[in-house]
Amino acid sequence: MTDPALSARVADFHSAYAEALNHERFAQWPDFFAHEGPCDYRIVSRENHDLNLPAPIMGCYTHGMVKDRVAMLIKGALTYRHMYLRHFITNVRAKRLADDAVAASANLLVMQSDHEGNSSTYMVGRYEDELLPHGDSFQLRKRLVIIDSFSIDTALAVPL
Amino acid sequence: MTDPALSARVADFHSAYAEALNHERFAQWPDFFAHEGPCDYRIVSRENHDLNLPAPIMGCYTHGMVKDRVAMLIKGALTYRHMYLRHFITNVRAKRLADDAVAASANLLVMQSDHEGNSSTYMVGRYEDELLPHGDSFQLRKRLVIIDSFSIDTALAVPL
Amino acid sequence: MTDPALSARVADFHSAYAEALNHERFAQWPDFFAHEGPCDYRIVSRENHDLNLPAPIMGCYTHGMVKDRVAMLIKGALTYRHMYLRHFITNVRAKRLADDAVAASANLLVMQSDHEGNSSTYMVGRYEDELLPHGDSFQLRKRLVIIDSFSIDTALAVPL
Repeated sequence: MTDPALSARVADFHSAYAEALNHERFAQWPDFFAHEGPCDYRIVSRENHDLNLPAPIMGCYTHGMVKDRVAMLIKGALTYRHMYLRHFITNVRAKRLADDAVAASANLLVMQSDHEGNSSTYMVGRYEDELLPHGDSFQLRKRLVIIDSFSIDTALAVPL
Repeated sequence: MTDPALSARVADFHSAYAEALNHERFAQWPDFFAHEGPCDYRIVSRENHDLNLPAPIMGCYTHGMVKDRVAMLIKGALTYRHMYLRHFITNVRAKRLADDAVAASANLLVMQSDHEGNSSTYMVGRYEDELLPHGDSFQLRKRLVIIDSFSIDTALAVPL
Repeated sequence: MTDPALSARVADFHSAYAEALNHERFAQWPDFFAHEGPCDYRIVSRENHDLNLPAPIMGCYTHGMVKDRVAMLIKGALTYRHMYLRHFITNVRAKRLADDAVAASANLLVMQSDHEGNSSTYMVGRYEDELLPHGDSFQLRKRLVIIDSFSIDTALAVPL
């Protein structure tokens, strides 16, 4: 059973996550993931996901890999065409698992805007997450990003 | 008076509805509608709606018609260019009616993605609903889909 | 600390605000702002905001200016190409301030549809608000609209 009150708390987590990425505070990104125990972050195409093809477009399987993912972004060492991004995370549904964990899903739309102020769709997809309680909020022990869009201009320079 | 706690429960219903359509589980779609008593599903253009012109683009006026609406989709007998769809249902507002029913409205954005991974806007519109309690959730006794977009590539092959 | 229950109440306010604008009930718009005391409504570009450049694209600094903002729209005296707009306000986060006020942020996507039914992105941005309790809901004492998009067809004819 999904739980609307729990969903509202997870939605607040998602909004904090979105805000960190939208403001390009990449150094905060690893703290949205569990530091101890399993830690899994993958991006897969919807087509592969539906066919049960496991190969991700990108994957981090430990917290160290999650930190590595944004190391170059934090240093500003990565060269890519800069776009303002904005994450719209909607239709959050959460339910408790057998242990303390929470399973949750949400839809994701990321809009991009260039420096001339032109906006377009950057990404359409879905999160399928497992979260653990952490203080008053949560940390991800697993985030699967299933993307409908994969002809992406900026080649996934920044995390989703 | 709209009721934010009730809105959260209706939002959970909308998310389940969106999930069934996004995953193309069309056989589930009729179960989001009341099986007994009045059952009404219509799609109208915003222009006609604002002018009080009643002719819908599509309408189902009984639960049987709702089931018929997806019969061809379930059989896979309908030929249309396949697109991945994703429903973003936001700004849900719900209030109790005099009987047990709930009146609710929400905004709807449906994004489509083709098999090359290109995403674009499929549909922009609004739901105006009446729902009845059903178990821990709801069923629709009336769903009016008021669409701002109506030059639709796929000619409304699938429900909104 | 953000408060999910408070966020849900603010989201209901945002949905009422969006609904008034989507239905072009411009005469209602000033009532979403505090009539007494400070009243501030500004639109700034994201670039200027990030650089701490204060010049807004548009600003109202009193409730009288807020009323003036829509006076021409109410009279129908403003000539612009009419588009149907629809506001998607998501990822609402609210927290209480020291006094009775509430600070809140949200993401904003406005889609536009022309009379031929073609939909496109009108605006991507973010609200940063301060709200005061008002009856069962709120009024804005400050609304900052930070816009990622600024090459806008209709030149900001209507409020955001």
